[in-house]
Amino acid sequence: MEISKFQKLMYELYAHNDKRRGGKATMLWLVEEVGELAEAIRREEPENIEEELADCFAWIGALANLYGIDLEEAFLKKYPGVCPTCSQKPCICTD
Amino acid sequence: MEISKFQKLMYELYAHNDKRRGGKATMLWLVEEVGELAEAIRREEPENIEEELADCFAWIGALANLYGIDLEEAFLKKYPGVCPTCSQKPCICTD
Repeated sequence: MEISKFQKLMYELYAHNDKRRGGKATMLWLVEEVGELAEAIRREEPENIEEELADCFAWIGALANLYGIDLEEAFLKKYPGVCPTCSQKPCICTD
Repeated sequence: MEISKFQKLMYELYAHNDKRRGGKATMLWLVEEVGELAEAIRREEPENIEEELADCFAWIGALANLYGIDLEEAFLKKYPGVCPTCSQKPCICTD
C-alpha cells in the first residue's frame, strides 16, 4: 500500500473526529499509544508490539492529515536516502 | 512510495544500529521524537511539526524492522477499512 493511500484511508475514517478534537488532543492520543507500545516492548509481547505499532502509525497518519502534511514527502525531505546526521547509507552514527 | 519500500529503506540505513541498540533503547528514541513532536504542536510550528512527524514515522519503521513486523500488514490487521472500535467508516466514536 502506498503511504498516500494509508493517509487517505485514515482521512476517510477519522478526519472529522481529528478536526473536532484538534491538534493538541490528537497528540495526546499518540502519546497514549506510544505508552502502550512501551509497555508491550518492556514485556516483550510480540502480538501487542505489532498492534501498538499499528496504532502509533495510525495516529501519526491522523496528525499528518490534520496539519495537511504529506507523510511520504516529509519523510523523504528529512531522510533523502541517507542518514540526515552522518549523510551516509548505511548510517555510521554510533548512538 | 509503498510502506514496504519505506521499511526497506529504513532497514538499509539503520538496521545494524537498531540491532546493536536493542528494542528498549530504540523505543526511547521514539519517545524522544514524540516529545519533540509534542513541543512543535504545542508551539504551533508547522515546519517543525512536519520534521518531527517524519522522525516519529522513521522510528516506528525502525521498531517494526527490529521486531520483524510488516507495518502495512499490522495496520490492515488492526484497521481493516473500518474503525476497530465502532466497526464503521467513517468512525462514529465520540472521543
